[in-house]
Amino acid sequence: MSPEPPLTGPVLVVGAGLLGTSIGLALRRAGVDVALDDVNPEHLRTASGLGAANLRVEELEGYGGPRLVVVAVPPDHLGEQVAHALESTSAVVTDVGSVKAAPLRAVASRVGADALARYVGGHPMAGSERSGPLAASAALFDGRPWAVAPHADAAPDAVRTVTALATACGASPARFTPEEHDAAVARTSHLPHLLAAVVAGRMTEAPPEHLALSGQGVRDVTRIAAGDPVLWRQIVDANSEALGRLLRAVRDDVDTLVAALDRGDRETVGGLLDRGVAGTAAIPGKHGGPAQPETSVLVAVPDHPGELARLLSDVGEIGVNIEDLRIDHDPARPVGLVELFVAAGEVDHLLASLAHRGWTAHR
Amino acid sequence: MSPEPPLTGPVLVVGAGLLGTSIGLALRRAGVDVALDDVNPEHLRTASGLGAANLRVEELEGYGGPRLVVVAVPPDHLGEQVAHALESTSAVVTDVGSVKAAPLRAVASRVGADALARYVGGHPMAGSERSGPLAASAALFDGRPWAVAPHADAAPDAVRTVTALATACGASPARFTPEEHDAAVARTSHLPHLLAAVVAGRMTEAPPEHLALSGQGVRDVTRIAAGDPVLWRQIVDANSEALGRLLRAVRDDVDTLVAALDRGDRETVGGLLDRGVAGTAAIPGKHGGPAQPETSVLVAVPDHPGELARLLSDVGEIGVNIEDLRIDHDPARPVGLVELFVAAGEVDHLLASLAHRGWTAHR
Repeated sequence: MSPEPPLTGPVLVVGAGLLGTSIGLALRRAGVDVALDDVNPEHLRTASGLGAANLRVEELEGYGGPRLVVVAVPPDHLGEQVAHALESTSAVVTDVGSVKAAPLRAVASRVGADALARYVGGHPMAGSERSGPLAASAALFDGRPWAVAPHADAAPDAVRTVTALATACGASPARFTPEEHDAAVARTSHLPHLLAAVVAGRMTEAPPEHLALSGQGVRDVTRIAAGDPVLWRQIVDANSEALGRLLRAVRDDVDTLVAALDRGDRETVGGLLDRGVAGTAAIPGKHGGPAQPETSVLVAVPDHPGELARLLSDVGEIGVNIEDLRIDHDPARPVGLVELFVAAGEVDHLLASLAHRGWTAHR
Repeated sequence: MSPEPPLTGPVLVVGAGLLGTSIGLALRRAGVDVALDDVNPEHLRTASGLGAANLRVEELEGYGGPRLVVVAVPPDHLGEQVAHALESTSAVVTDVGSVKAAPLRAVASRVGADALARYVGGHPMAGSERSGPLAASAALFDGRPWAVAPHADAAPDAVRTVTALATACGASPARFTPEEHDAAVARTSHLPHLLAAVVAGRMTEAPPEHLALSGQGVRDVTRIAAGDPVLWRQIVDANSEALGRLLRAVRDDVDTLVAALDRGDRETVGGLLDRGVAGTAAIPGKHGGPAQPETSVLVAVPDHPGELARLLSDVGEIGVNIEDLRIDHDPARPVGLVELFVAAGEVDHLLASLAHRGWTAHR
């Protein structure tokens, strides 16, 4: 994307939850004037106390109104709040919802073409498992992608302004059409969430002694299914079209699997497993590059404060860079297995050096 | 389970892959005599070089043959190898395959009732993503569950011997019938694997710019789908019955979801999401207890050797115990976000202390 002029305020942020408050904090960090509004006075007080705003909403008039309104409310209220912002101000208006096409339709049904031209949807790809203003941070968007999803009739100046918002918050703006955006997140976020919920749901019927055989695999697959079901219900509903297409394809995959299992057709099962391997390789890894096969070393670490630090301090002294780290808690005793992911060429050196320092480590 | 007498050797381990070699190493650690056999002479040489055996197979005769044979070969060869061991020795015979009922049927079709009484299936729940003898470790089974799955006519002495094997390897034996075992791992291991592969497979069709929006969620859901498809094809085939039942239930769930999305039925979607939340809570967490809601702190950590160690060393000095840790690599710049999971009561103290030491941290 071409460089855009820096964002000028004041910015009105509507909604003092995790995202709205974080945007306020990030903009204040960038020196931009911010006013914050929320129907919940407690959220508003908390967010203001954290420093997410330097202006009261009433003070905006003295500036000729806001230059940009950021609507950061739950999916169900997006359309109406964006429309309200377009009609009550002459500002550019954006939002931070997880879905873009449905809110756009809701806005378009409520306002005229002139107002609609000032609306450009956005979606920062940042932490949504926590919620509320207390979880907010000025650093929440640093280095994250921020989808900017203008509709066909959006004013170029409005697109520039929303792109500048993403940059001012420390994020990397990425341009999508609303439909493209929704297709992308249906695949990379909403579909995984629903299937994690389906797999996790199947655990509720199991006797506890069966679940005692659970390993890290099922924990990883189901982790995101613990997310807020009220929020996710709205997201799924708002993106039902793109999601429906993918779910039908998944249903066909499962049908294919069931039939293949019934007739002992290993080729079909193998083909599906092969496609899974290819899919894991297609998901970008760290720093946006392709996922790289990493090697790992397992180390037994007593579960006391400081022991993990002692290990990593030793690894630091050994001079090996840790690409990733996973703690695999041992179900039967108070020792954790720590898996250190390092470059393949470092494994032998690391194993020998750890053993020398008294750690029990293996591949 | 009641305490059993310690294992007495010699033990013959058939198959010098990850599991066979690790069992040899663990038994040698426990002072038990071990001989190792493999059709692949290179694997055998490597495993022996690591110290996984102290006897040659020919030396077993001098001991009156092995007391126990552990068959650690791929699922496809289990039945024939177990039958061969039962017929060529008078030893107790066990295996370490991921599935128990199908191999049992294969063995029962090949040997008489007397020989069959000496067979007791087993399944240590330990690392199968790596493979080969070089990945082996004496500590692989420490504290892990080890399913002991005798058939109805197994000799009590054979059950005791296989239970003693699990204990000698450092594992926690857990008794199941073969059918119960297969139902348990179909749910907690094989179903999650197949659905991870289905979700990952859907990523292969996506344009790279869509995949650029991938977050930690889809990475977690799909991680295990990178596992060896040749091995998994055999596992799925061997457990097709229990797995078929679960897959049909999952297909019905997906059908329900598709229909609910089509008619905008949020209650049904919400019910499925709620069941997912309940499922994540049912999976046992660390130390075998119920999963506990943990709070986390995010810290920005420069991606250089030693920086993670410096952080954890600081956390150790602050005196907070890290329950879990996740590294969320930033797709756009060389800074990682490290998520530290700690007890809820420690968060404020940790945040303040980290800020004091110059770290950028937030909830």
